[in-house]
Parts: sequence; structure tokens; C-alpha cells
Amino acid sequence: MASTPREAPDDQAAKPLLAVLKGERRDPPPVWMMRQAGRYLPEYRELREARGGFLDLVYDSDAAAEITLQPLKRFALDAAILFSDILIVPFALGQNLTFVGGEGPRLTPQLATTPLDKLTPVPARLDPIYATVARVKAQLEPAKALIGFAGAPWTVATYMVAGQGSRDQSETRLLAYRDSGAMQALVDRIVATTVDYLCGQIDAGADAVQLFDSWAGSLAPVEFERWAIAPTAAIVDAVRARRPGVPIIGFPKGAGGKLGAYARETRVDAVGLDETVDPRWAHRELPGDLPVQGNLDPLALRAGGDHLARSVAAILDAFAQRPHIFNLGHGILKETPIAHVDELMAIVKGAR
Amino acid sequence: MASTPREAPDDQAAKPLLAVLKGERRDPPPVWMMRQAGRYLPEYRELREARGGFLDLVYDSDAAAEITLQPLKRFALDAAILFSDILIVPFALGQNLTFVGGEGPRLTPQLATTPLDKLTPVPARLDPIYATVARVKAQLEPAKALIGFAGAPWTVATYMVAGQGSRDQSETRLLAYRDSGAMQALVDRIVATTVDYLCGQIDAGADAVQLFDSWAGSLAPVEFERWAIAPTAAIVDAVRARRPGVPIIGFPKGAGGKLGAYARETRVDAVGLDETVDPRWAHRELPGDLPVQGNLDPLALRAGGDHLARSVAAILDAFAQRPHIFNLGHGILKETPIAHVDELMAIVKGAR
Repeated sequence: MASTPREAPDDQAAKPLLAVLKGERRDPPPVWMMRQAGRYLPEYRELREARGGFLDLVYDSDAAAEITLQPLKRFALDAAILFSDILIVPFALGQNLTFVGGEGPRLTPQLATTPLDKLTPVPARLDPIYATVARVKAQLEPAKALIGFAGAPWTVATYMVAGQGSRDQSETRLLAYRDSGAMQALVDRIVATTVDYLCGQIDAGADAVQLFDSWAGSLAPVEFERWAIAPTAAIVDAVRARRPGVPIIGFPKGAGGKLGAYARETRVDAVGLDETVDPRWAHRELPGDLPVQGNLDPLALRAGGDHLARSVAAILDAFAQRPHIFNLGHGILKETPIAHVDELMAIVKGAR
Repeated sequence: MASTPREAPDDQAAKPLLAVLKGERRDPPPVWMMRQAGRYLPEYRELREARGGFLDLVYDSDAAAEITLQPLKRFALDAAILFSDILIVPFALGQNLTFVGGEGPRLTPQLATTPLDKLTPVPARLDPIYATVARVKAQLEPAKALIGFAGAPWTVATYMVAGQGSRDQSETRLLAYRDSGAMQALVDRIVATTVDYLCGQIDAGADAVQLFDSWAGSLAPVEFERWAIAPTAAIVDAVRARRPGVPIIGFPKGAGGKLGAYARETRVDAVGLDETVDPRWAHRELPGDLPVQGNLDPLALRAGGDHLARSVAAILDAFAQRPHIFNLGHGILKETPIAHVDELMAIVKGAR
């Protein structure tokens, strides 16, 4: 899907994940898992208890680098993904960010009641993230890729407007219907900062980047074009112009039947599929050379057993003729037994 | 999409909704709104305050018939939909049903902890619903259709297992992964009762029936085939065999890219589209003669204004060559201004 010339760094051929993102098929496919550095790992839970809250860990580059690398010490994963959070961008845009135990993140002031121009951006809040990326890169084996990431503008906006996670993202969708100008100003601001942020991660050593549009699924079709596709396309174009050759994965969770339009119109290098997508349908619907990533149901991994083996086989089979990165359809669940991940890795890597 | 012979009652030609369900195009299209008998109407709120809780109203056939007809007194809707609830089936299957103010329904005992065979079915709990249907039918103008309904087995099962609404339906999805035999037994039980229930509504006067699969969207693809498509197909076949000629609308909310498979494999007479479906994509994806129903974002109706007019026009335009019933993509929101519904009706009926 690359429509602009790329400078391919020498080491890319050695990294299976990058090879697939450039359009090669690999058998077995490279594999990583969303939220692979997280609470299902006892070593993560230990470090978190010892060193404090979630945001403290993100901003402690030593700890964040260690956490990023933890899952690669256990499993034959082909990529590390930066341990961080999509709400770092709102934090850099000037909102206060806290994580309330058990209730999730809080951003203040919420933009539902405070105009955007009351926020004073603090770009330096991005710098420790770059330090983490550099630390991970220095310790990563050459065959492993390092994935940086950001939230897609729509998803980030839903948190900035509501000040927290929200059911059906109604508050932000309503703002978009009632005052699309204000919504556009917010999205434009997020786009600009996200471009800088992703370029900064790339400069620090990220081999590829992923845009998480976790709440794309609640958008009506015309809104999806304006708030999910268009801002993603703007980021893709800008990052590609400034840092050519670095693949960009788009993950529009819940896009459903709008997945084909997303893939064609955003010009991302690869599309992440959530667990509700039928891989056979996706293979028919998406451009034939487009790499895809996904899409095992995290609940099937938690449940394990015969069903897990069959689910994995169905995905591998559906994407047997296409560049494919094996992944979950969303983040690994904290209740997932380690033994089930071992089993998954064995199946994907063909050991059984 | 009728694949079996139908006996067409004489009055069907006079009901625009039934004509479209039989495959005719009507311009302007017939229109109704999911949850059109509900809390956005001041006359409903008054009656509810005066006469008690939600379930009391459902089981008071006089009140339920009055509520069913309320929206048709205000708006030029082409159909009434029975005022009832999808949890009447679990109630008839022997669970206790209560509606806790502000928290939604509760079913006890929940099947996550109690075996199905501990429930003692109480089929007579369905009878008052048939009485309501008959009362509505007796008062309905000939050009208006009466729609009966039930929850689709997967959606009903999620409430029966968890005992209430649940985030991502995880408990029930996990049961399906871990003990598909137990899940199948539950779904088979729901299928059998739902067939009886829909036939009972038809015998009492329902002109068409709709199956609401409100939580179809959380199912992984293989699970979607087993728990959304297969039980719906079983109901469609059985109802069609027992009551030929009565159209069945399937509404698989959140089916996304699996919508085409749902339409082809369930053999429903029409497919309801949720508000996230791009109507242009649906028109390409679905069989050309299949009637569709939908799919305005209820939040766009709540917001009103120019955007509402444009959204409605886009839907009408996309389905200009196909049998189409105008509807929302899910239930009307209780905050919706009456004036916005008037505006919607004027646009759809071509008055502006």
C-alpha cells in the first residue's frame, strides 16, 4: 500500500514484522499481542506494586523499557510495543491526567465544558516517552521490531471531551453533530501533535507505528469518514512525508463494513482487524496486497482448549495468501493464563 | 427473499410496510422507529408515572395497547410495534424478572450459577402479550402494520446467563467457549419458546415480526455463525413453516462485515441495519432484492439541525433502488425532542 518511495533501512529484511509490513508473506507469520506488556504477566504486576501507579511507570523510562521487554523474555514474539498510553497526547496538549484505581483515566478539565484554547500545551511531556523508546531499542535483538503508537484522533478526542471513557462516546458524537467546527479544531490539534509524537518515536528508534482507533466503532458512516478516516489519512501523509519508509498500522476497532473504505482511503500500510471481523470476509474485502494484522478473540485465548486451536487455525488459513501478522483482535485480558499464551505461540509458530 | 410459498392476506397490499417486506419499493418509504413507544413521549411518561413500573405496564394489556398506539397518534408512522420487552421469554422460561429503577433488568436465578433444568417454565406468562396484540390490532387503521417481536436467542441468552445486561457479554461468550454443549441446550430452549411466542403473536394479529439480536456485535465470526445465524435461521424456518406469509425482519446489531452472511444464511425477509452501517456499502453487499430497514443514528435525531436533514437524505439516496423501510439504527433516545421527530417525518415523507 506504499504510495510514496521508501528508504528501507538495512536491518529491515532481518525483522519478519517489517518484512510483512512491506508486503512480504512470511510462514509462519510474525506475531505480537496488543497489551502484551501488561497485567496478565506476574512480573508486570510485581513491578507495578513495587514502583507505584500506572502513570508513574510510563514516565519512569527504566521501568517502562523493562515492562516493554518483559513479554519478549517469555514468548517468541516478533515485536515489542512501547509500554505507554494513548492519553499521553492529551496530557501534552495541557490536560491533567490521572488514573483512578479501578475506574480508569481522568482528564481535566474536560472539553465538554472548557474551550480548547484554555489548555496550555506542554510538549515536554512527550520527551520521557522518547527516552523509553531509545532504551528499548538499545536492548532489542535485531530480529525483533519495536512498535511505537498513538491513539487515533477520534478516540483521543472522545476522552478529551468527556474527561474519561464513556458509554457509546455519546458526548463527543453529539458535539460533532452540534458543533462540527469545534470538533474539527480539536481533531486538527490532535493530528498535529500526533504527527510530532510519532516522528519523535521513530527518531528514537521505533521501526513501525500503530494508530489505535479504539472507539471508531460508534461512528455513523458519514462521521466515520470525517473523524476516523480523514484525520488518520492526514497523519499517514504527514508522517510518511517526514519519515519515509516507516510502516504505519491502522487499527479501526469496530469499523465493520467500513473497513474497506478505511483501508483504501487512509493509505495505511497495514490494517489491524478486531476479533469480530470474519477473516475470510476481510480477505475478500481488502486490497489483495494489503498486509493485515489480527484477529484472535482475546476471550478465546483466555478460555483456551480445543476452541483456541481451531480459532487460530481458521485465522491462519484465511490469510494464507496474504501478508499477515498474527495478533489478537484487541488487548490480551488480564485473566489470561500464561500457559494459554504458550499454547498460542506453539500453534502459530507451527510447533504443533 | 421468500424461498417458500406465501399466502398473502388480502389486506397486505394496503399496508405499505408489508408491501416493502414482500419486495416492493415504495416512494416515500414506509417508516417506523425502534422504541417509538417510549420515554421521549410525554404521554408515555405520564402513563408510566400514573400506572406503575415498566413490567406492570407490559402486563396490563389495556395500558400496553394504549402505549403501543401513542406514537401513531402523533406521527404518520406506517407501523405500530408491540410495547413489550425481549425478556418476556426468559420470564416464560421460568426466571424471575424485575426492573430495578435506573439499573435495568434483573433475571434470577442467573444461569451462570444455576443449571437450566432447575428452571420451571411458565408458558402462561406469554398470554397477556397476545391479549395486547389483539387489542392493538382491533384499533389499528387498515394501512398500518402491527409488528410483533422477540429477542434473538443469542441476545436473550446473554441476559439469562449473566442475569442482567453485561459489558461485552463476556460471561456468556466465555460459557460458549468453555461449554458449548450447555450453551447449545440453552439456545435450543430459547429457539423453541421463541417460535411458539412469535406464532402466538401472529395468531393474535401481528402482521410481521422482528428478531432483535442487540448483542450480536460482540461475537467472533465462528461464534456469530453458531449463536447468531444458526438459531435465527431455525426460528425463521419454523415460523415460516407454521405461519407462512408473515414476514420476519432480522436485526443483527453490530454485525458489521458479517451482515451479508447473516442476510443470506438466516433467510430473513428483511434485514435491519444499525446506525454504524454505511448504507452505500450495504446496498452493494446485500442481495439486490432484499428489503432493508434503517438506519439513522438516533443521536443525529436527538441533535437535529442541518445534519439530520443531510443524514436522512443520504440514507434515502443510498436505498433509492431497493425495497426500504426507513427506521433508526437503534432505539430512539429518551432525550429526543418531539420537534425533531416531526422534522424527520416531514423529510422522509417528502413534505420538505
